[in-house]
Amino acid sequence: MDFQLYLDILGTIAFAISGVLTAMKKRMDAFGIFIIAFITAVGGGTLRDILIKAPIAWMHNLTYLYVIIGSTLFAAIFRAKLIYFRRSLFLFDTIGIGLYTVIGMQKAILLELPAPISIAVGTISACFGGVLRDILCNEIPVIFRKEIYATACIAGGIVYFALNYLGVLVNFNAVIAGSVVIVVRLLAVIFKLQLPSIYQVDEAGR
Amino acid sequence: MDFQLYLDILGTIAFAISGVLTAMKKRMDAFGIFIIAFITAVGGGTLRDILIKAPIAWMHNLTYLYVIIGSTLFAAIFRAKLIYFRRSLFLFDTIGIGLYTVIGMQKAILLELPAPISIAVGTISACFGGVLRDILCNEIPVIFRKEIYATACIAGGIVYFALNYLGVLVNFNAVIAGSVVIVVRLLAVIFKLQLPSIYQVDEAGR
Amino acid sequence: MDFQLYLDILGTIAFAISGVLTAMKKRMDAFGIFIIAFITAVGGGTLRDILIKAPIAWMHNLTYLYVIIGSTLFAAIFRAKLIYFRRSLFLFDTIGIGLYTVIGMQKAILLELPAPISIAVGTISACFGGVLRDILCNEIPVIFRKEIYATACIAGGIVYFALNYLGVLVNFNAVIAGSVVIVVRLLAVIFKLQLPSIYQVDEAGR
Repeated sequence: MDFQLYLDILGTIAFAISGVLTAMKKRMDAFGIFIIAFITAVGGGTLRDILIKAPIAWMHNLTYLYVIIGSTLFAAIFRAKLIYFRRSLFLFDTIGIGLYTVIGMQKAILLELPAPISIAVGTISACFGGVLRDILCNEIPVIFRKEIYATACIAGGIVYFALNYLGVLVNFNAVIAGSVVIVVRLLAVIFKLQLPSIYQVDEAGR
Repeated sequence: MDFQLYLDILGTIAFAISGVLTAMKKRMDAFGIFIIAFITAVGGGTLRDILIKAPIAWMHNLTYLYVIIGSTLFAAIFRAKLIYFRRSLFLFDTIGIGLYTVIGMQKAILLELPAPISIAVGTISACFGGVLRDILCNEIPVIFRKEIYATACIAGGIVYFALNYLGVLVNFNAVIAGSVVIVVRLLAVIFKLQLPSIYQVDEAGR
Repeated sequence: MDFQLYLDILGTIAFAISGVLTAMKKRMDAFGIFIIAFITAVGGGTLRDILIKAPIAWMHNLTYLYVIIGSTLFAAIFRAKLIYFRRSLFLFDTIGIGLYTVIGMQKAILLELPAPISIAVGTISACFGGVLRDILCNEIPVIFRKEIYATACIAGGIVYFALNYLGVLVNFNAVIAGSVVIVVRLLAVIFKLQLPSIYQVDEAGR
């Protein structure tokens, strides 16, 4: 489906550029920046494909590699101007996680994995590139600390199966679920929503 | 075997709660805490299954997911009281590594892997959930620094093959090997035993 | 091929000892040091084999395990004297990445993966043991920051396919490509060459 590939490329661009920005802050060299961009962009899908034992997408389709090389060059050259693209990048990233969640979920469903596991697989596809990026940059992954990000993916996954249960057609399903991911993520950022953080009450008492 | 599943669930609970506690210390949000609990509980088994190319247990049996969700909620709600459960948690964890070592080892033996590799697979099953937990929380894994933990697993593995060589029946074998893991770990904690740490003698000289 | 196995063992020794040295600096215990040595030595090949869905080399050939145990013991015992072996270790490591790049690349080519992906697989084989070592020691991987290391592997990979395109025989190809990796790496260290690091121009402006 051409439209899906187009969205996939937008997501890859956004993920790659978020990798470039994180790696530049850590003062990595050119190769390090490219590798972080690469792993941020394909890491979630790679972990998904290892878990479900599917062929790994970027190893069989050079489009990903070329898009990531292009995005890295673009981001490195225009690094001083990227602030002007911030909203576009955020939008691409949000579209990316919506799409990756649905694609991952559908791959899991084809393998007849149970619904909650399929939601987990979709969420892993969308989120683990960013987790790997943060681990390689020696940070606690940002999605574990202060963003409604994976939560948006899980919300979309639940809507997908709820609609399915109600008998909605699969393709229509997928579009709505992806949109739910995108809308939840947008609302969370616009209204600065966060999940509660549960501190340990009496750390002294341990 | 029902008894084995029961022990497996105890281990999963202990591993999940150790993940919750580590994640809470890092001030993660609710989703982050759940993910760390999840990865701590299933990470070792997942890496084992990837290495031996077996189906990944938690993807085909929802029990793990539900037990981890339940443990996370329990730990989050009673976080101020968990200190009273410390001994039970330690005991569950110790039973968990004994069991996981033996299960992992037996899976490797079925694939006719050599004895030292089977011991490695068992040890990975038991220990790498905790390693992943510490990496995601941006710590050097605790088992590399100051605990007789993996060493207990390796000791149990060696006993397993020694008994096997002496002609002891496989199931009896397994029970004894698991018990060795548990006893070595208990003794190490009770008597505060540690492996020697080998410092570099002349760091200045490098 | 006996000669290849011999080079492979030299590379394994060098990688294992680099793991031992990093782990000792972090004051790990004996088990932690061994595990870091093990993962540094086999990590790149393991990730390669997971990605290309091949059997994992160290699980089916005990030579790796024994070489790593021997290297760890040697390094731990002679830790104060390792400074005298520094050049040999550097040379082993350099031979190791040359060899691992070519072996990884050839495995990918046999699976008919595209040329740039095969180069990536070769580079991953050579470099990711060191990346995993640094992650487990809670450092930003050194190859992302300040060394021409992966770049040498990529250069060798490009030469391999260029010669292939020009009709050079495959085995002759492999020797030249491996030599290119080694020479680029040696020159980079001798002349202290580095890739440019691209700092963000206006970090304040973000």
